[in-house]
Amino acid sequence: MTNTVSYAPELLAHSWFNTDRPLLLSGLRGRVVVLSAFQVLCATSVACGVPQAQRIHETFAPNDVTVIGLHATFEHHDAFSAAMLKAFIHEYRLKFPIAIDEPNDAGPIPHTMDRYKMRGTPSLVLIDRLGFVRKHTLGAVDDLRLGAEIGALTQESCAAAARTSAA
Amino acid sequence: MTNTVSYAPELLAHSWFNTDRPLLLSGLRGRVVVLSAFQVLCATSVACGVPQAQRIHETFAPNDVTVIGLHATFEHHDAFSAAMLKAFIHEYRLKFPIAIDEPNDAGPIPHTMDRYKMRGTPSLVLIDRLGFVRKHTLGAVDDLRLGAEIGALTQESCAAAARTSAA
Amino acid sequence: MTNTVSYAPELLAHSWFNTDRPLLLSGLRGRVVVLSAFQVLCATSVACGVPQAQRIHETFAPNDVTVIGLHATFEHHDAFSAAMLKAFIHEYRLKFPIAIDEPNDAGPIPHTMDRYKMRGTPSLVLIDRLGFVRKHTLGAVDDLRLGAEIGALTQESCAAAARTSAA
Amino acid sequence: MTNTVSYAPELLAHSWFNTDRPLLLSGLRGRVVVLSAFQVLCATSVACGVPQAQRIHETFAPNDVTVIGLHATFEHHDAFSAAMLKAFIHEYRLKFPIAIDEPNDAGPIPHTMDRYKMRGTPSLVLIDRLGFVRKHTLGAVDDLRLGAEIGALTQESCAAAARTSAA
Repeated sequence: MTNTVSYAPELLAHSWFNTDRPLLLSGLRGRVVVLSAFQVLCATSVACGVPQAQRIHETFAPNDVTVIGLHATFEHHDAFSAAMLKAFIHEYRLKFPIAIDEPNDAGPIPHTMDRYKMRGTPSLVLIDRLGFVRKHTLGAVDDLRLGAEIGALTQESCAAAARTSAA
Repeated sequence: MTNTVSYAPELLAHSWFNTDRPLLLSGLRGRVVVLSAFQVLCATSVACGVPQAQRIHETFAPNDVTVIGLHATFEHHDAFSAAMLKAFIHEYRLKFPIAIDEPNDAGPIPHTMDRYKMRGTPSLVLIDRLGFVRKHTLGAVDDLRLGAEIGALTQESCAAAARTSAA
Repeated sequence: MTNTVSYAPELLAHSWFNTDRPLLLSGLRGRVVVLSAFQVLCATSVACGVPQAQRIHETFAPNDVTVIGLHATFEHHDAFSAAMLKAFIHEYRLKFPIAIDEPNDAGPIPHTMDRYKMRGTPSLVLIDRLGFVRKHTLGAVDDLRLGAEIGALTQESCAAAARTSAA
Repeated sequence: MTNTVSYAPELLAHSWFNTDRPLLLSGLRGRVVVLSAFQVLCATSVACGVPQAQRIHETFAPNDVTVIGLHATFEHHDAFSAAMLKAFIHEYRLKFPIAIDEPNDAGPIPHTMDRYKMRGTPSLVLIDRLGFVRKHTLGAVDDLRLGAEIGALTQESCAAAARTSAA
């Protein structure tokens, strides 16, 4: 896990799937949040990141550990469409909430990706019950280690998380 | 392999990638042809069919065993675009020729898929040196068995293939 | 995890590998212990249980999460020898402590396996910092879920473990 | 495949499993023979070589492509026993004939392994219908390529094999 601890920036989304209303991190305090950034046209996202996000969603109680997918379109902009993502979600039977990252008029990197300083996809961010970023990685992640990190975060009460974050 | 033997219908393509000119089966007589039909938004295609096609392309000499990809868009038409396929080919580093199946004004099934009576994706068709269909399957295919079938077809001279096809 | 909580019975070993002295659970209080029972001649042990035990050993700090292998020879007694296990440990490059379960003159089930009421191999037992059994399963186990369970146990102080076990 | 072609040396076996009489290559002329050398205490044999041999046995008609396993005990002699191999064959549900290579009083390398100049396990040897060695490799082998090589050999008549071997 990272040594420096900072608040997870709020998500900026163009649109959402698998939820009847937009999700705000501020509304998820008290839960552990797994933010899984991916692209449909990124091979490692499709082979590793997305199936792992689905496994996390199926393994933990969603109101204790909430998985959020983020389609962080930072390349192949002309190839992406909301219809494509919708079909992908249907075909891969993804059940967790997924946002399209808000496009940025100033450049190719969409807003949420920019705020988190993600360097590509797949990227994974673990956010504790108080809203602090506790892990942030690029690329494929080992299930056993990730499970341990999520499992450890679930054991933190909000009070304990506060102490850890302040340490 | 199938018992009934029929000529492989000619391909009808909207456009091609990884080749500087359209491929016609009639121009490939004397070679074994592996026709691999897939869709970018089909999970089994992406996990099994497409990587297997790439492995075949890398395992055999292309002028002896020619792999042709066919993007058979029979669903999610609004989600598909040539730009999406182009990005997919780039990201998955596919090197074999790939055609977009010719859309059909009369319905959702594109023309080549219709001619071959493919029932979905991934579909795999083995065509012998004389142009006869020798195998036609839907879904994931075992590498060992498929390798054996391709290896057997490569040993047929055009004359031998003629005898087998006539049997 | 199991609902009923009981103390983990002490290990009874014929001999040990990868440690210069026998391990007693009573000497490991304060640590999480992963007890991984296997047999060299059990296919699921070799394909799943043993590599997972090695991954756990490599993922966690051994003095926080201690992995112990147990060769629970309950079948093929005539095929087993300490020399065979020694060669297996060498060839599979296993680094965690491994015991040969104490044979039982009264029957085929060795003593530790009998005490734990293991029904076969691979079997996995999670023991918390106070020495209570918190999970006990037969067969292959999912990495993500197991990681979460171990990660959660690592967050328990001895005091917290006491409260949980007493609940 | 190898460029130089030589007759496959006859097998020398201490004992056999899964067959009611010893197999001689001279008695298998007309068939393609896949000789798969392995050791129970060799990780790559167990993970790759042995399951692949079983797949070959299940994919091809045994009287056309005959798989023969060879337990080539060249290390860990004190750990090996016929009882161990018998239990392994039972647990892994192997159905093809398997020989224990004949031990060599003069050194650690058993006789068949020595005759074939195998450098370790797993080793794989493809023998054509006339009894010539056509492939000989050490280590894990790709299913697609191996399937193609076996499939090609099956298409050779004895007469054709004679021409190829003489070339």
